[in-house]
Amino acid sequence: MIILGIVGSVFGSKTKIALNNIEFSDSVEYRIVDLSELTLDFADGRDFRDYEGDTKIIIEMILEADGIVIGTPVFQSSIPGALKNIFDLLPIDSIKDKPIGMVVTAGSSRHYLVAEYQLKPILNYMKASIIEKYVFLEGRDFYKDTIIEDDVHFRLKTLARDLEQRVVTVEKENVLKYDF
Amino acid sequence: MIILGIVGSVFGSKTKIALNNIEFSDSVEYRIVDLSELTLDFADGRDFRDYEGDTKIIIEMILEADGIVIGTPVFQSSIPGALKNIFDLLPIDSIKDKPIGMVVTAGSSRHYLVAEYQLKPILNYMKASIIEKYVFLEGRDFYKDTIIEDDVHFRLKTLARDLEQRVVTVEKENVLKYDF
Amino acid sequence: MIILGIVGSVFGSKTKIALNNIEFSDSVEYRIVDLSELTLDFADGRDFRDYEGDTKIIIEMILEADGIVIGTPVFQSSIPGALKNIFDLLPIDSIKDKPIGMVVTAGSSRHYLVAEYQLKPILNYMKASIIEKYVFLEGRDFYKDTIIEDDVHFRLKTLARDLEQRVVTVEKENVLKYDF
Amino acid sequence: MIILGIVGSVFGSKTKIALNNIEFSDSVEYRIVDLSELTLDFADGRDFRDYEGDTKIIIEMILEADGIVIGTPVFQSSIPGALKNIFDLLPIDSIKDKPIGMVVTAGSSRHYLVAEYQLKPILNYMKASIIEKYVFLEGRDFYKDTIIEDDVHFRLKTLARDLEQRVVTVEKENVLKYDF
Repeated sequence: MIILGIVGSVFGSKTKIALNNIEFSDSVEYRIVDLSELTLDFADGRDFRDYEGDTKIIIEMILEADGIVIGTPVFQSSIPGALKNIFDLLPIDSIKDKPIGMVVTAGSSRHYLVAEYQLKPILNYMKASIIEKYVFLEGRDFYKDTIIEDDVHFRLKTLARDLEQRVVTVEKENVLKYDF
Repeated sequence: MIILGIVGSVFGSKTKIALNNIEFSDSVEYRIVDLSELTLDFADGRDFRDYEGDTKIIIEMILEADGIVIGTPVFQSSIPGALKNIFDLLPIDSIKDKPIGMVVTAGSSRHYLVAEYQLKPILNYMKASIIEKYVFLEGRDFYKDTIIEDDVHFRLKTLARDLEQRVVTVEKENVLKYDF
Repeated sequence: MIILGIVGSVFGSKTKIALNNIEFSDSVEYRIVDLSELTLDFADGRDFRDYEGDTKIIIEMILEADGIVIGTPVFQSSIPGALKNIFDLLPIDSIKDKPIGMVVTAGSSRHYLVAEYQLKPILNYMKASIIEKYVFLEGRDFYKDTIIEDDVHFRLKTLARDLEQRVVTVEKENVLKYDF
Repeated sequence: MIILGIVGSVFGSKTKIALNNIEFSDSVEYRIVDLSELTLDFADGRDFRDYEGDTKIIIEMILEADGIVIGTPVFQSSIPGALKNIFDLLPIDSIKDKPIGMVVTAGSSRHYLVAEYQLKPILNYMKASIIEKYVFLEGRDFYKDTIIEDDVHFRLKTLARDLEQRVVTVEKENVLKYDF
């Protein structure tokens, strides 16, 4: 299966480090796409097939993925506009039933509920199959480019396992729904 | 005083129509900036003075305004990424104590609470002086390019009046705080 | 399996009507408990086993249920205090992994997102296994004591089916986790 | 002026300690009412004038107050049902334009946004005049029954001053609106 990690930040390195630290089983092809390395258009209402360049590429990567890990920093007590723009680009039902996990990096634990109130309602509206328990990392969980907090590693492992299992479960349910 | 209307949508006309229908008193210079007419950068962490072109212009317009009306459509049950990106561009305390009103356009009244839960917490985090009562417009409030619902006109008038008064009040408070 | 419907309202009949209209398969024992018919204590910090009377009974009913349907009206743009009090009474992990569906009745579609922002975050905190898609009923869906909107019946059916399936799925997962 | 502090918790002492630590100017009569000391009914739809005993008393205290400080602990990632019930008891427009400040006590800073997302939307719906900046206290701000964190004392002072000023401002605005 293909799992896509989206580094939803246009600057800062912590979100990318967190996504790089997720390990899946051998049956997963784990691809990471980093918004800071792409040149993206703002969603302007055109059909998703009419975007070009990096914008076209990231839409196709999302459509193709069996599961997604959204990595997001906290900007102004919400997700970055650059990440929200990705959702705006997607056609209706494009992530419906798609398993999605979340990894949030923030400067302070006071931002803990940002994913609960700013990100989940968007994913619920788009009918994704959300892994409710997200992994939250604060500044003190890092030393330079290393995640030094064992518990974070454990929670990333749990997220990876839950996401893989969810992909399997959702595929089975889809077979039951459509395949006869 | 200068009041800036921000049309926070990269496509669709309803938000702009709504903002064009707000009338302030003669003491207000009402400027409207439309994100769909600008070529904007994604916030990438640089100092706000280092942006160029339209990005520089909209930041300066926001800093200069005495009050702001944010006009937003609802995309994926939240505000557009393009609008969120504007907040990401702003330096800390740039809209602190700045009076801000909100006008929301949506296809269905089921989106009514999007401004309450997705927009206000961002503005509160940035310490804006929010006019809590926002104006919400649905599709049926329009006929072509005209707002046909009298009650909407009344609510836009109320918003305009409240916003002007708030600018006066906040300026008085700032004089009391700093001018001795 | 036992599924418990909780009528989370101390007055009004619509929430109860909605819960009475849910039909499960023959393998389900569907029990409905109506807060308006109970004499309940406010959660006061004591151990859950020390409550008495109706308070003790409803806690035990919740602990015993394999799945729950929470029926709630909208009071002051949130869930009733009486319903929130039920959550306050419960011991930690008491609804962890327990499948929970939601049925919301309101006077206006403007309240649609109340369940998303006021109820789901509580259930997520308590680690319930939420059926994300809730059923929302407005006044116009009723004629006297009858639900006249076919689509509502369809959505209640879907909720019932999803909840039953989830109970089965969660039980299987628990067997895999613990039963070896 | 009368300012009413509501200790919105049925158990625990920290919220009460916090409210006891607020000092207003001499022009304020500061009354504190503690939900744990009252025997309250659940809101059951009757006219607010038909409640009796403590329920009647707290409703009247709220109606009479010129401003309110709501003190709340965090239960299940939200406000206590006992506190939400108070709002359910109130008649429409009873706290309209009434200045309200918030003091939140929690075990962890991860609950910081609970007031933003669970309490403010209720008060906004009821059209209260909210002091947006709430005071948040964690366990480590206390030593036994004393608030040991200087910054908390400073923020409580700021809240008290802002609330008093708001009462004065709102009264002036009401005079302008109605008194001719």
